[in-house]
Amino acid sequence: MSNLSYAVVGSGAIGGYYGGKLAHAGQEVHFLLHSDYAQALQQGLRVDSVDGNFCLQKPNIYRSTEDMPQADVVLVGLKTVNNHLLPQLLRPLLKADTHIVLIQNGMDMEADLSEVLPHQPIIGAMAFICSNKVRPAHIRHLDYGALTLGCHQWVDERKLSLIADDFTAAGISVSMDPDLHTARWKKLVWNIPYNGLTVVLGSTTDQLMNHPQSRTLVRQLMEEVIRAAQTCGAQIDSDFADQMMSNTDQMKPYKPSMLLDFEHHRPMEVDYMYDRPIRRAAAHGAAMPLTQMLAWQLRFTESKNQTAP
Amino acid sequence: MSNLSYAVVGSGAIGGYYGGKLAHAGQEVHFLLHSDYAQALQQGLRVDSVDGNFCLQKPNIYRSTEDMPQADVVLVGLKTVNNHLLPQLLRPLLKADTHIVLIQNGMDMEADLSEVLPHQPIIGAMAFICSNKVRPAHIRHLDYGALTLGCHQWVDERKLSLIADDFTAAGISVSMDPDLHTARWKKLVWNIPYNGLTVVLGSTTDQLMNHPQSRTLVRQLMEEVIRAAQTCGAQIDSDFADQMMSNTDQMKPYKPSMLLDFEHHRPMEVDYMYDRPIRRAAAHGAAMPLTQMLAWQLRFTESKNQTAP
Repeated sequence: MSNLSYAVVGSGAIGGYYGGKLAHAGQEVHFLLHSDYAQALQQGLRVDSVDGNFCLQKPNIYRSTEDMPQADVVLVGLKTVNNHLLPQLLRPLLKADTHIVLIQNGMDMEADLSEVLPHQPIIGAMAFICSNKVRPAHIRHLDYGALTLGCHQWVDERKLSLIADDFTAAGISVSMDPDLHTARWKKLVWNIPYNGLTVVLGSTTDQLMNHPQSRTLVRQLMEEVIRAAQTCGAQIDSDFADQMMSNTDQMKPYKPSMLLDFEHHRPMEVDYMYDRPIRRAAAHGAAMPLTQMLAWQLRFTESKNQTAP
Repeated sequence: MSNLSYAVVGSGAIGGYYGGKLAHAGQEVHFLLHSDYAQALQQGLRVDSVDGNFCLQKPNIYRSTEDMPQADVVLVGLKTVNNHLLPQLLRPLLKADTHIVLIQNGMDMEADLSEVLPHQPIIGAMAFICSNKVRPAHIRHLDYGALTLGCHQWVDERKLSLIADDFTAAGISVSMDPDLHTARWKKLVWNIPYNGLTVVLGSTTDQLMNHPQSRTLVRQLMEEVIRAAQTCGAQIDSDFADQMMSNTDQMKPYKPSMLLDFEHHRPMEVDYMYDRPIRRAAAHGAAMPLTQMLAWQLRFTESKNQTAP
């Protein structure tokens, strides 16, 4: 276990889980909390996990990053709908060599952050996990949990290795992907069909897989994303859609994060998960008509959802 | 007013309205009824219309076409989901020169019927009407009502002219379209976006028009249908989508027939309204990816709806 200090920005289903695992393993972790602060102060930060439940009784918690110590590593578990807040949230936490790990879904989060922090080390992380926040400061981890890390800019390889070791020591399966761009697109091959369709069609993943026409649509969306990714230079094998279909067939019935956001009347990650890949693909001459239609349907559905009682 | 006798097969929102108007004007009309028979026998056939309410006190009603007299003209107001029943339903009504008028939405209904009745005169009719059945044998006519007639095969021009005159005398605005193929496609330019999207997105027409992304999607679907139609040889001007958007902006908030079918857990007309035009366009080399996606979503939605409590 390293002597790196960690800060967690966005301590929900993702940040709370990964930060919680590190802290539970003895790592120094500081958590930024907002609405969950009072609950975490009273009862700690609780993680009910298929790998064993635990509760951090006295976590290091803060209401503002202004009050937090600078960190060697910042784990960002915010929803991307809040990424416009990141520059301001992060500044108090940063030393020159603080590594920022964006554990988020979508495309271009690293590039956007790089525009305001061009000299800061930035790592992208893909979380392959089923987890959600069931109550304030109370996370339920249902399945999986592996992290894939990829470098965006200025990453110190020695430090990256320490971070990976810390996660491993905390019981998280970690792998490195030397091609973050491809890794982001690969995650989208799953995220684009399942997040959007479960919201628009009001269903879980297994329902989509068990009906022939929705199954075909999932598959067509995957293939469209793969074609767009390949046009943008990502290295994705032609059998990758088969793998994703097969993996999903083996999953328990699941509500993707966007469906949970929808059900809780929260903003959905349409921008980074749909608009950005569509825009990037278009810039390379690849159209994504089905993905675009799904994104439009999501915007309409979100607008109805937010005005609903 | 002619001395033509009319039979109405499918006496719901469409057949009940148009047949009812003819009968109310004094034309000889015989109605086939199923679930509404008892109600019509007791209380007549009632039409509440923006153009004036009326009730046929003693309509000629039947439970089976076997019991009906042969007719000069058969108006078919069935939903196309029941078109497989047409050959059997129609045979008892047909003389050699009986003209069959299909007042239905979609593509290829005439061609399908022609396969089993290759020598029978067949007319296609497009109804531009907002009407629905609110109770058994009780139709509410909300807006519009014009009929467009086009010949499919073997039509006697003199008889067609008499039919048009009968409708006109009954207060129905009738126009002739010498190009039924184009007229069917033009109707689909409206039907494909609004029917499917109101079901999948759980909305009325005005909600789709008032949100920028769904409005864009409606427009994109219209343009896809127009491109497919043009590839199939239909004559549609490039500003037709503008006209349809503008007409819909001026309509009252409206639930298209497919949304009403969905809300009442009835089968939806996905085959003739989506699958057939997609198949026809594909045969001419035109892809309809957005329409196809909408059709797949409708099939999934229908299946969920039918298994719902």
